[in-house]
Amino acid sequence: MSVSRVVELEGHIIDSGMMQACFGIVMDLDGAFDVEEFRVGRSKTEESYCRMTVTAEDPVTLQSIVHELHQHGANPADPQDAHLTPASADRVVPEGFYSTTNHPTEVRFEGEWLPVERIEMDCAVVVHPADEGGDRGAERSALNHAPDGEGPWAETKVLNAIEAGDLVVTGETGIRVHPPERPREKRAFGFMQGGVSAERPSESTISQIAEELRRVKADGGKVLVVAGPAVIHTGAREALARLVREGYVDMLSAGNGFAVHDIERDRYGTSLGMDTETLDHPRKGHKHHIYTISEVIRAGGIPEAVAEGLVDSGVMYECVENDVEFVLAGSIRDDGPLPDTITDAIEAQNALRRQAHEADMVMMLSTLLHSVAVGNCLPSTTRVVCVDINPATVTQLLDRGSAQAVGMVTDVGTFVPTLADYVLAEES
Amino acid sequence: MSVSRVVELEGHIIDSGMMQACFGIVMDLDGAFDVEEFRVGRSKTEESYCRMTVTAEDPVTLQSIVHELHQHGANPADPQDAHLTPASADRVVPEGFYSTTNHPTEVRFEGEWLPVERIEMDCAVVVHPADEGGDRGAERSALNHAPDGEGPWAETKVLNAIEAGDLVVTGETGIRVHPPERPREKRAFGFMQGGVSAERPSESTISQIAEELRRVKADGGKVLVVAGPAVIHTGAREALARLVREGYVDMLSAGNGFAVHDIERDRYGTSLGMDTETLDHPRKGHKHHIYTISEVIRAGGIPEAVAEGLVDSGVMYECVENDVEFVLAGSIRDDGPLPDTITDAIEAQNALRRQAHEADMVMMLSTLLHSVAVGNCLPSTTRVVCVDINPATVTQLLDRGSAQAVGMVTDVGTFVPTLADYVLAEES
Amino acid sequence: MSVSRVVELEGHIIDSGMMQACFGIVMDLDGAFDVEEFRVGRSKTEESYCRMTVTAEDPVTLQSIVHELHQHGANPADPQDAHLTPASADRVVPEGFYSTTNHPTEVRFEGEWLPVERIEMDCAVVVHPADEGGDRGAERSALNHAPDGEGPWAETKVLNAIEAGDLVVTGETGIRVHPPERPREKRAFGFMQGGVSAERPSESTISQIAEELRRVKADGGKVLVVAGPAVIHTGAREALARLVREGYVDMLSAGNGFAVHDIERDRYGTSLGMDTETLDHPRKGHKHHIYTISEVIRAGGIPEAVAEGLVDSGVMYECVENDVEFVLAGSIRDDGPLPDTITDAIEAQNALRRQAHEADMVMMLSTLLHSVAVGNCLPSTTRVVCVDINPATVTQLLDRGSAQAVGMVTDVGTFVPTLADYVLAEES
Amino acid sequence: MSVSRVVELEGHIIDSGMMQACFGIVMDLDGAFDVEEFRVGRSKTEESYCRMTVTAEDPVTLQSIVHELHQHGANPADPQDAHLTPASADRVVPEGFYSTTNHPTEVRFEGEWLPVERIEMDCAVVVHPADEGGDRGAERSALNHAPDGEGPWAETKVLNAIEAGDLVVTGETGIRVHPPERPREKRAFGFMQGGVSAERPSESTISQIAEELRRVKADGGKVLVVAGPAVIHTGAREALARLVREGYVDMLSAGNGFAVHDIERDRYGTSLGMDTETLDHPRKGHKHHIYTISEVIRAGGIPEAVAEGLVDSGVMYECVENDVEFVLAGSIRDDGPLPDTITDAIEAQNALRRQAHEADMVMMLSTLLHSVAVGNCLPSTTRVVCVDINPATVTQLLDRGSAQAVGMVTDVGTFVPTLADYVLAEES
Repeated sequence: MSVSRVVELEGHIIDSGMMQACFGIVMDLDGAFDVEEFRVGRSKTEESYCRMTVTAEDPVTLQSIVHELHQHGANPADPQDAHLTPASADRVVPEGFYSTTNHPTEVRFEGEWLPVERIEMDCAVVVHPADEGGDRGAERSALNHAPDGEGPWAETKVLNAIEAGDLVVTGETGIRVHPPERPREKRAFGFMQGGVSAERPSESTISQIAEELRRVKADGGKVLVVAGPAVIHTGAREALARLVREGYVDMLSAGNGFAVHDIERDRYGTSLGMDTETLDHPRKGHKHHIYTISEVIRAGGIPEAVAEGLVDSGVMYECVENDVEFVLAGSIRDDGPLPDTITDAIEAQNALRRQAHEADMVMMLSTLLHSVAVGNCLPSTTRVVCVDINPATVTQLLDRGSAQAVGMVTDVGTFVPTLADYVLAEES
Repeated sequence: MSVSRVVELEGHIIDSGMMQACFGIVMDLDGAFDVEEFRVGRSKTEESYCRMTVTAEDPVTLQSIVHELHQHGANPADPQDAHLTPASADRVVPEGFYSTTNHPTEVRFEGEWLPVERIEMDCAVVVHPADEGGDRGAERSALNHAPDGEGPWAETKVLNAIEAGDLVVTGETGIRVHPPERPREKRAFGFMQGGVSAERPSESTISQIAEELRRVKADGGKVLVVAGPAVIHTGAREALARLVREGYVDMLSAGNGFAVHDIERDRYGTSLGMDTETLDHPRKGHKHHIYTISEVIRAGGIPEAVAEGLVDSGVMYECVENDVEFVLAGSIRDDGPLPDTITDAIEAQNALRRQAHEADMVMMLSTLLHSVAVGNCLPSTTRVVCVDINPATVTQLLDRGSAQAVGMVTDVGTFVPTLADYVLAEES
Repeated sequence: MSVSRVVELEGHIIDSGMMQACFGIVMDLDGAFDVEEFRVGRSKTEESYCRMTVTAEDPVTLQSIVHELHQHGANPADPQDAHLTPASADRVVPEGFYSTTNHPTEVRFEGEWLPVERIEMDCAVVVHPADEGGDRGAERSALNHAPDGEGPWAETKVLNAIEAGDLVVTGETGIRVHPPERPREKRAFGFMQGGVSAERPSESTISQIAEELRRVKADGGKVLVVAGPAVIHTGAREALARLVREGYVDMLSAGNGFAVHDIERDRYGTSLGMDTETLDHPRKGHKHHIYTISEVIRAGGIPEAVAEGLVDSGVMYECVENDVEFVLAGSIRDDGPLPDTITDAIEAQNALRRQAHEADMVMMLSTLLHSVAVGNCLPSTTRVVCVDINPATVTQLLDRGSAQAVGMVTDVGTFVPTLADYVLAEES
Repeated sequence: MSVSRVVELEGHIIDSGMMQACFGIVMDLDGAFDVEEFRVGRSKTEESYCRMTVTAEDPVTLQSIVHELHQHGANPADPQDAHLTPASADRVVPEGFYSTTNHPTEVRFEGEWLPVERIEMDCAVVVHPADEGGDRGAERSALNHAPDGEGPWAETKVLNAIEAGDLVVTGETGIRVHPPERPREKRAFGFMQGGVSAERPSESTISQIAEELRRVKADGGKVLVVAGPAVIHTGAREALARLVREGYVDMLSAGNGFAVHDIERDRYGTSLGMDTETLDHPRKGHKHHIYTISEVIRAGGIPEAVAEGLVDSGVMYECVENDVEFVLAGSIRDDGPLPDTITDAIEAQNALRRQAHEADMVMMLSTLLHSVAVGNCLPSTTRVVCVDINPATVTQLLDRGSAQAVGMVTDVGTFVPTLADYVLAEES
């Protein structure tokens, strides 16, 4: 006695790997499939369509198969409304809650497909009916920079944003996922299917990233830079400061250490005590680091330190001068920290989340911790550039299913100056 | 004015990724396709079939598309005999020679499909017509452990084995490639599609490798171990020696250094001068290494040193005592070398090639150089286990398209003893 | 009845590290020294001089000490001619041959010091007396681009260049080595002094760590374990839980992720969705992770979840049951987090600091972030064990100047079970 | 007009490296020393004593020298009380605060040496006078598990624990540091002394290497480049060819693969089939590689191929045109090989040895195998530059005791072009 369900796939389902993934899922999970209709796109612009019945021994197995198929873009052929279950308490999800992918997603509510706003991986989906009242609408428009909506709407919520009574989507019905399709034409930014190699022609790759960066800015897009302290230690500070000054960076995400090293370099010409020009190690080492923090604390914060002339160069200086929003997230490794550093992890994560959702392009420069935190919040449609000397870091960061990503195993100390040269040379 | 060609795919072409790969190739190479017939396997055991016309702007583009499709298992719908062009000189291939994949391959000669013997990546295919005479037939049977054939036959040849007059396959017609299909049931050994993670439960994975090793031996298969010096330095020597003694290793591939370290351990209790039990460093260091080589030279070689009682334990000792064939390949880093080491790279490569073609399962233990050399000669149907502390090494070695491979980023110093415990425990 | 020998050092022997190295050698090799004369260079250009008598229990030990001292530039005070022994055959060195360093070297022949030409590490030294005749002289000038010499000369030979009859230097007398001195002025090019190697015998090292762990506990010391999520993913959870249960862990420092993975394993048999026994990937993936957090939130925290029977195995369970204090520090990557996680970085750092100051031994298991945070707070007298698959992590963590530290580049998935076996086996 | 200060060291100051470190500090920081008294411990249990006057040009330099000496255990000979300065605000340290090491430390207060409690690196020291009252005493005993003290006491405080009014130690007087001494007996746990860090300012380091390269050439020295295939794959080929053409390379050591990739790039614009400009992958892949070898074989070798115009750009081309001697060593991984490749390992090693002995400076670019082979033959006086993306490779290569070496963990694809720019820019 087996159970079954009919699902459909459409689009460029063969060359995007959707068909392969879906067949694999059914077989891996001990199900069976019976293809009822298959129309292959006869040419590269024509889309394909597949309808098949998936069968399993029991409802639990079937549910887990259908859940996985969902995640890969196969949707039930007989759309019904999504099930909604109220959360019983703050930060508690109902049994069987739907856990999101990072792909564009729709949820069916009262016969209508609602786009899920601020899509992000591993979240719950909460539906807000139309009659919820004004406050929520205002909140929504604040969050999404969208005009006040009157109708019902849906959004993702991370576990700790769930409030008692939230209508959380449970089960697998009434949800449509749209994984990214393989682009029809060739691009600098690859369609990610795993595998990162260190041996690629570095300068050519950088020039293509420069081109994409210029294109994003020309189209009015927003660029988020996620930067680790190695950017300062390896001497890439001035080049990054130039990119900020010239308007190629809209937001900065970093840690307390990054900002301190950057300001220490301005104040003392050192980074963790080492002179980044002469390689001299004045051997006062960490003391400059602590002084730097102490002085910024005395001033009241970074903008205040810039205002009173304490800091007059570098990445943080340019951010302040050019109204580039920066988020400094605290960590247990920090000295100090600076008054500008958000020490609460949840609060810091929410600040990063806001940046991630606004960004059209993200450049992750030599920081695993902050890049993972930002990457967790990104929809699969955002362009991602990831640069690190450690191949494992690059692999891990690109392994999130972004549709347009490029990874480079290289040294930020030469990457950022070379990138800045390409970007700014093309300008003049 | 465009040119076109009809190609066919059959088998589990969707879930094995063949369809996806082929559509991708046509688009990447600026071709177009027109699917004329597509029968999808309705269930997981039913095979699929696709026939499509591939079109390109010019014959050169079409040829490169068709070449790539070949490599992924799409064959021309209108089979003709393969083109054969005689090699003009030793070690010189004709223009347009067919370069092999590591998948099972057939070549069409006088209307008949001949399997290509000893398939290996990046080689030429040479066809031997029936009337070639006795010598070649004898050579063939020697190479392949097969009864004397009377009819025509085909084989791969590396560039430097090509002889003037050899009939080399050129062009893309008359060749059929069979890439491995995704197994229908789940297995310990994965169907490789890129991506290696360091974070897998180590002991469970090792126990599954042990099981596969026992299964291969139970089926009368041959096991080749490719071992680097780290096996000795990290203290895994005794465990590997046990596996040899108990009959779980049929062939050993290593370098001069491996054998010297192993024998040094027997003679002096050290490996490169460090006592591997007490961690004491007697500080005679490299001297033991040189002495070891000097003594084996005096004896005349490793088997002679074993015979005269100079060596009475360890991996090399067990190989000699148990008639396990070993190939020691020389390198520019070597001290000595031992008389048993093959110093000529071509000769050593040929010895490795013979081992690779006989093996049913290959275990690559902490050596990039030898593992790449062996891996280059393996058909895609051989089981491969690859263990290294460096994730990049594991990724590179598994990236050869083996159908059944498992990679572990772990320490051979704990891997081999744990494996030996699992294998030999199950025995008793 | 002991034996002794007088040796001399001269030059910038203190700041070049020669004195330190020589004192260390004598102590490591169980010898004793008696400094008879010591003239320190009073200023940075003045050279120093040291003459000391080295004593050992037996001639073999003395010889090995004197050999090592040689390699570091200490020469016997009573120069005699070097011993020369003819090679008995091609490529065979005489017993007791002198094995070279790569430093400039002289050999004493007929009362005269000859520079050893073409110095190179790990070679033999061959002396050519003056009357050798024209061919050798010609060979020498060809090799060295030097004018024909008339007198005797010496050179290094690699093993396989040794010819029967070559006069090979044996023993330790009549040789002077000149290690490079630390440059007096600063330069771009550093003075290199060793590094960190991954290739040490793993099982022996682990057994010594086990011994130290037992000793610390026997002395009433406290053990702090700093653990990353890889401990769970690689299957080392049960072994660590055993160590906690058996009283070998007094404090635990980890992140939110570690605790969630550990509890998820208890609840669902998975870690981030992967079954750590069967390697099956139930494909519900991250959902178990979120559920786990949600349920612990509902219970009110980990101790409450243990109390109500929600969690009944694993590391966190054993910590609760055995009153082992745990500190879970939050991070911007976290899901949830659990109610037990300290989300404020400063507060978390203070909690870690308290643990760090109480610990007598710290084991850092596969977590860079938490290990750095703990390491920052440690006095240099605390014993540190650091295990990671990434050599760079181990190097960075040991680079804090601990007086008693051991680093292993290995896989925690095999390290922790092996450690537990050693620790607990010795117990019974 | 110079200033000076008398400092003392005592304990096992030689074998613990303290003397060496202190002499090094004075020299690095442009000071001078005059050893007034030196009593060496005559045996391994006897302690040593050194008193010396340290002189510098100005008080600031002297202070920084004395600060560093402190950190390494040298204390002023004329003990005075430590200076105490009240903190002006919470989380703000006074100018000139003393920044701690992680070694046991004492501070002198009212003529008495107080141990600094809870010692930890990079903190301030706060002294609590005796009359502070009950609360602080209670706090202290809570923190330290110690009985209530009545007298004055001292502790470390991290920046953010500093409260307004805290008496913070400033300056360098009245403080004693006790670095750990090398244990007298052997232990499992090593005495750690630093490592290798990847984070150095890349462009500055490269400019200094460029300067050294120019200096070596200006002095008539010879430069040997040891290059791996990554030089070609990462796009550094043209820059290396320029350096050869401009006379900055006298010898080249590489493998068969390097030369083939270089010539393939000339012939087909690809390297292993990938276009290094456009990143296009013509998908003929390995075939170009085999063709390249086949054509050079037909020509008779690389110089012949250059002579007949088959090759007209690249590294090998410039070597032939500029009479730069190249040694191509064969390996078991090779395709072909080229007729110029030396396939016998012994013969190849001898050729490398000749190059190594002639070189005054060696640049090792992304090849472990060839770099180890060359490094084995180098005297410790040869300048070595080692560049690799893998930190383990750099560490291993620098671990040969060279007196003048610089290692960079960076990407050759950006390193070589940047180096060529610096070298050739300075020229014009």
